[in-house]
Amino acid sequence: MRILILGGDGYLGWPTAMRFSQRGHDVHVVDNYLRRHAHEEVGTDTLVPILDSLPARADAWKDVSGKEIGVTEGDLVEWDVTADLFRDFRPDAIVHYGEMPSAPYSMRDRDHAVFTQHNNVVNTLNVLWAMREYAPDSHLVKLGTMGEYGTPNIDIEEGYLDVEHNGRKETILYPKLPGSLYHLSKVHDSNNIHFACRMWGIRATDLNQGVVYGIETDETELDDRLATRFDYDDVFGTALNRFCVQAIIGHPLTVYGKGGQTRGYLNILDTLQCVELAVTNPADRGEFRVFNQFTEQFSVTELAEIVQRAGAEHGLDVRIESIENPRLELEEHYYNAKHTKLFDLGLQPHLLSETLVESMFSVIERFKDRVITDAILPRDNWRPVAQAPAG
Amino acid sequence: MRILILGGDGYLGWPTAMRFSQRGHDVHVVDNYLRRHAHEEVGTDTLVPILDSLPARADAWKDVSGKEIGVTEGDLVEWDVTADLFRDFRPDAIVHYGEMPSAPYSMRDRDHAVFTQHNNVVNTLNVLWAMREYAPDSHLVKLGTMGEYGTPNIDIEEGYLDVEHNGRKETILYPKLPGSLYHLSKVHDSNNIHFACRMWGIRATDLNQGVVYGIETDETELDDRLATRFDYDDVFGTALNRFCVQAIIGHPLTVYGKGGQTRGYLNILDTLQCVELAVTNPADRGEFRVFNQFTEQFSVTELAEIVQRAGAEHGLDVRIESIENPRLELEEHYYNAKHTKLFDLGLQPHLLSETLVESMFSVIERFKDRVITDAILPRDNWRPVAQAPAG
Repeated sequence: MRILILGGDGYLGWPTAMRFSQRGHDVHVVDNYLRRHAHEEVGTDTLVPILDSLPARADAWKDVSGKEIGVTEGDLVEWDVTADLFRDFRPDAIVHYGEMPSAPYSMRDRDHAVFTQHNNVVNTLNVLWAMREYAPDSHLVKLGTMGEYGTPNIDIEEGYLDVEHNGRKETILYPKLPGSLYHLSKVHDSNNIHFACRMWGIRATDLNQGVVYGIETDETELDDRLATRFDYDDVFGTALNRFCVQAIIGHPLTVYGKGGQTRGYLNILDTLQCVELAVTNPADRGEFRVFNQFTEQFSVTELAEIVQRAGAEHGLDVRIESIENPRLELEEHYYNAKHTKLFDLGLQPHLLSETLVESMFSVIERFKDRVITDAILPRDNWRPVAQAPAG
Repeated sequence: MRILILGGDGYLGWPTAMRFSQRGHDVHVVDNYLRRHAHEEVGTDTLVPILDSLPARADAWKDVSGKEIGVTEGDLVEWDVTADLFRDFRPDAIVHYGEMPSAPYSMRDRDHAVFTQHNNVVNTLNVLWAMREYAPDSHLVKLGTMGEYGTPNIDIEEGYLDVEHNGRKETILYPKLPGSLYHLSKVHDSNNIHFACRMWGIRATDLNQGVVYGIETDETELDDRLATRFDYDDVFGTALNRFCVQAIIGHPLTVYGKGGQTRGYLNILDTLQCVELAVTNPADRGEFRVFNQFTEQFSVTELAEIVQRAGAEHGLDVRIESIENPRLELEEHYYNAKHTKLFDLGLQPHLLSETLVESMFSVIERFKDRVITDAILPRDNWRPVAQAPAG
């Protein structure tokens, strides 16, 4: 298949590109290095060193695998970039990771909030119009997030909810209650994509992904030059990855507030599996298909305790510390999110274990001198100045 | 009260500004003339002549009423404009009409789609941040549209729906199923505003307004210079207003498709009443309040028949003609939308009657030489070229 990877320079985008290339697909990646620039802006960096550019990464991949990955360095917000890409490459499938991915970044101030929504909404609109014009039979596999749902008091279904109201029935899009302006940008995307499916007959799969952890994939392990980025900081790092780095450098694991915040999690190996399952089993014409993409649920405290135990086995004395929550979120809540559709397609999960955490420790230890320690604690508070938190 | 009217040059914005000023409030209007420029772009114009600029309109208002309306000519997408406005004026209430208001305009092509969503989403985000920074206790009265709900197979409630699922209960935002990229921009706005209420304690009322008809208000009738714009064309005109113009110029009333499309409607006099009721009964801190703002439901065919009967009384021979529907929408569907909350606050409706239609005929007759006849039939088709309509 001809597969276009949007955001192909990112934590998940680059391993995804190599995976599909390894499988013999014709792969083209595009990225504008937004993530690299945002890290420069906030003074952080990937723990694991990565090559300087996509052309350099594609060269290394060719050197190792003998296979070619096409590269476009450009911004999908610019219509000419998107249109040329679709007109020239004519993809069968589009895997769309190409968005600003951080909730804290979007909540910093007005400029970052507007940038996030503008960037994500406009580039996805461009992709939808490009599909309509140049690749009407192609399949969009869009990375959304479980964070779109928030933490409702009822079971979270996979995309749709059947309701009965005053004696009549309807199937509705599952209601969204996102917790940041970044998560809202993904909700806007989902609504726009749903519209394109209904009105233009576009095929789309919205992957509401949980929090991804892990460093290595079959392809990154082939050569150091093929490594993917690994972020642990307050803006781009996610819970488990951050905890592992904290454990190695002797920093207490920083749990925000009560630690009862429960989310879905998955191994980076399973992200690749899920995306592959979605691409090779495309949605129908006009179908807006939604999968909840994670393998297990954990509270933040449970995660911290797993890292603590793995640390003990590894000879580390790991402490857990609760700090004031910079976010506005429920710290104790009901959470039961369905996630059966990808299993039905054949997903074989790599579940979280202390052994897996210890294997992450080994990689982190190799690069621990690169840790920027003042980027670990949260530097932004989401509450308005001089206002009490909203109820 | 200090009342800021965003989009104060528009069909509803200008009469709203005069109404509040007449009542003794301190009123400031802002507009970037987007609507006037969009009309120039598509070759259409208001039927009723209006003064050239907001300062000229404010001067005429002062001349007639002795009262001042403050004016800012500027674009709310520019943060400096929005921030200065809120910092200087410190509003108690903000009435937000300041958006690109046309579904057909948003569906013309990629540029118009992206412009619409960018303009509407970013200016509303700016308003929310300006409230957070400079007027945290003020109340946002945001004009949304009944079109956000679409035509679901269950009763449409006012903003929220109680659901029971697997033995647990939750109150969710009423699901949205918008029919154009313009309507989607309003859904994005609603989601962003809901977030600002939940997270920052903003007060907001989302007015999901039906289709407005009518030409005159108590204040526009005081002097020709105080008239508001009246659009009848394929891009900015709405069903009843367009039918009345067609009746007067001897054009068949153009019903799109089967004509069973049912929507909520209200008189412009009731828009002013509803907005006044919302402003003078503000939402609580942190409350996202939703009102469905219309007084009656009609199908397009019913509307056409009312105009036909009024035409007969007026000595006009009015024909009704079904034309191919340029839109992608259900032409026969269930529709039962609740609209009790504004009545509970005291709304006294001006219901549609043949007498009201005849009074619109009189105004239209006065200006019928200004009708641009080639702007009446739809010029854009919403379906992708060379594709069958989506199911």
